[in-house]
Amino acid sequence: MSREDLKEETLNLHRTFRGKIEVTSKLPVDTEEDLSLVYTPGVADICQAIVDNPDEADELTSKGNMVAVVTDGTAVLGLGDIGPKAAMPVMEGKSLLFKKFAGIDAFPICLDTKNTEEIISIVKALAPTFSGINLEDISSPRCFEIEARLKQELDIPVFHDDQHGTAIVVLAALINSLKITGKSKSSIKVVINGAGAAGLAIADLLLYAGFHDVTLVSLEGVIRKGASWMNERQAVMSERTNLNGVDGGLSEAIVGADVFIGVSAPEILSKNQIQMMKRDPIIFAMANPVPEIYPEDALEAGARIVGTGRSDYPNQINNLLAFPGIFKGALNQKVRDITVDMKVAAAEGIAAVVSDEELCPEYVIPSALNKTVAQAVAHAVERTVSNKVECFV
Amino acid sequence: MSREDLKEETLNLHRTFRGKIEVTSKLPVDTEEDLSLVYTPGVADICQAIVDNPDEADELTSKGNMVAVVTDGTAVLGLGDIGPKAAMPVMEGKSLLFKKFAGIDAFPICLDTKNTEEIISIVKALAPTFSGINLEDISSPRCFEIEARLKQELDIPVFHDDQHGTAIVVLAALINSLKITGKSKSSIKVVINGAGAAGLAIADLLLYAGFHDVTLVSLEGVIRKGASWMNERQAVMSERTNLNGVDGGLSEAIVGADVFIGVSAPEILSKNQIQMMKRDPIIFAMANPVPEIYPEDALEAGARIVGTGRSDYPNQINNLLAFPGIFKGALNQKVRDITVDMKVAAAEGIAAVVSDEELCPEYVIPSALNKTVAQAVAHAVERTVSNKVECFV
Repeated sequence: MSREDLKEETLNLHRTFRGKIEVTSKLPVDTEEDLSLVYTPGVADICQAIVDNPDEADELTSKGNMVAVVTDGTAVLGLGDIGPKAAMPVMEGKSLLFKKFAGIDAFPICLDTKNTEEIISIVKALAPTFSGINLEDISSPRCFEIEARLKQELDIPVFHDDQHGTAIVVLAALINSLKITGKSKSSIKVVINGAGAAGLAIADLLLYAGFHDVTLVSLEGVIRKGASWMNERQAVMSERTNLNGVDGGLSEAIVGADVFIGVSAPEILSKNQIQMMKRDPIIFAMANPVPEIYPEDALEAGARIVGTGRSDYPNQINNLLAFPGIFKGALNQKVRDITVDMKVAAAEGIAAVVSDEELCPEYVIPSALNKTVAQAVAHAVERTVSNKVECFV
Repeated sequence: MSREDLKEETLNLHRTFRGKIEVTSKLPVDTEEDLSLVYTPGVADICQAIVDNPDEADELTSKGNMVAVVTDGTAVLGLGDIGPKAAMPVMEGKSLLFKKFAGIDAFPICLDTKNTEEIISIVKALAPTFSGINLEDISSPRCFEIEARLKQELDIPVFHDDQHGTAIVVLAALINSLKITGKSKSSIKVVINGAGAAGLAIADLLLYAGFHDVTLVSLEGVIRKGASWMNERQAVMSERTNLNGVDGGLSEAIVGADVFIGVSAPEILSKNQIQMMKRDPIIFAMANPVPEIYPEDALEAGARIVGTGRSDYPNQINNLLAFPGIFKGALNQKVRDITVDMKVAAAEGIAAVVSDEELCPEYVIPSALNKTVAQAVAHAVERTVSNKVECFV
């Protein structure tokens, strides 16, 4: 379908159905008896049961399976700060995907405020309605503060998908790619181009997962100790990355790298730069819709494995592989927090969906539409929790 | 079904289904093309269309048909201040009824704060997600301030159902009752027992609708000019009610009354008191589950028409007759506010569902389960709007 046809069909579809989600009833209300069961007077007994034991709210109401998809509309897709009303189609889409891929009820919350403290206090006040919070499309660096504070102050899991969803799927794709190139995570050099929310989260997760040599490159240049232009989060990361103290930009950082991960801008990686990398370069060019380099060019320049954010090329690095299963596992186990161990387990769960027989340079990551992935991820997350319980015993 | 059986079945039902509502998708997501239409890259065009024209949010997203059912859990049923988690079963029930009776998507929002200013600012921040706000089970007098401020500061309708829903259905029942007793609204005396949110709203609406002589009785006594114990709202109402300056309590106020409306406590109206009323007393005893007087006793004492809040007696005065249709009309017409004229029109719409042939003392108000009522109410509300437009022309 051409871009123009897609636009027309998308608009028609949204207008005809008036959006994508609806709130439906699981029970009938046709008789007096139905009404007395779902509403008064019967409902008073359900209220009382929750007064007696607040944990019952998870079992007796929709709360136990309900996730909020929260945004302030400040960093939506490639569109930027388009505000809460215009962000709704994305949040609704996310809610729909939660349901389709993990059976989770998710509701879009588009907030008419950009004030960090206000967003934190609103989400805290909303918490009794939900069992998980998926933060979405909130601009950096505010997203860090908002997520960190909510994780600390709420007893339900909080997950900023733009950071961790992306990081998990990248890690999954890397785990499988390294099997093909026969390299080990502790000995390779990874360059991440883009040092916003996603880039920083990828660096964080890779380092935790045992990758050793990671270098971040921002628009201002390579993240390095002492650079004056870094934000707080970048400064912290400068202590753990760029082991050789490289100065300059992408051209300097890319020399001798094994992996290029792009969460940045269209067509900023050249064939020449790929030729400066080590043998069997791995290229994940995730800028959307135009990647950092087109796959055909990357392959021509010698890349062994290429992934993008697009569905029309092999190896689509899509958050959809992570967030439904992560939340499914978290809700099933009623965890208070989504830990880094769970994120690593989720990545391993995604990677393991591709069997050794199937694994090849064009297939290092399952299709975004593979509905078995969410279950695999949920199981991996759940095992992390039960393992931990076993350790305590 | 016995009260104990009802309790057990209600608990089983809620536990089996894990609550009553779910968030479902209106569209399939099975192919790459589906995904490109409901999510990226297609969704960006929907966002852009709303950036270009914010009103399109009503047509292109679920917002246009979405109502928030907001509570802080401070005045839930007869249970009182049970908090936001325990209030959820009621709010979910309400959401379900919105869908079943009016096709409206409604989502429960249970807030973990009792601070009036915080509730106001949270609901304002949530507004981009919704096209209407139904306030529910918020304690008096905070509910007055919250509703008044939100009506003023938001451009979507705000409706506190405990006040106005009840008032509308009472007015509907009164309109039909007066046809039977042959009395006129301007010449009769109405006593409302209970001067909280519901009682005050009933008084307000009756006065607006042309009733002349209304007296409110609170636990402290008859609402009368200069009484020291009144709250602000009661003081305002004391200027417009109790035309004869009656002092004392219900026993004093009831003498010579034509109508008793109870939104108060179990069994506080005696047969003796009914015998002090004018001929053909109309008794709406709405305390739940035990009414101010049981219908059999009221009839024995000479009452002509008796209504309660219960489904097992004739003439159930149930908010369910009002709120689905009110919001349906408001959303259809995209009104910014639910006006008093709309409330009166809604009451007339409900009353008109009972035909002259059907009308009798045991049937002055349609069944709560009559699914034609919401449509009749919606039409009545919509006509108010289009009439107003015609007046401007």
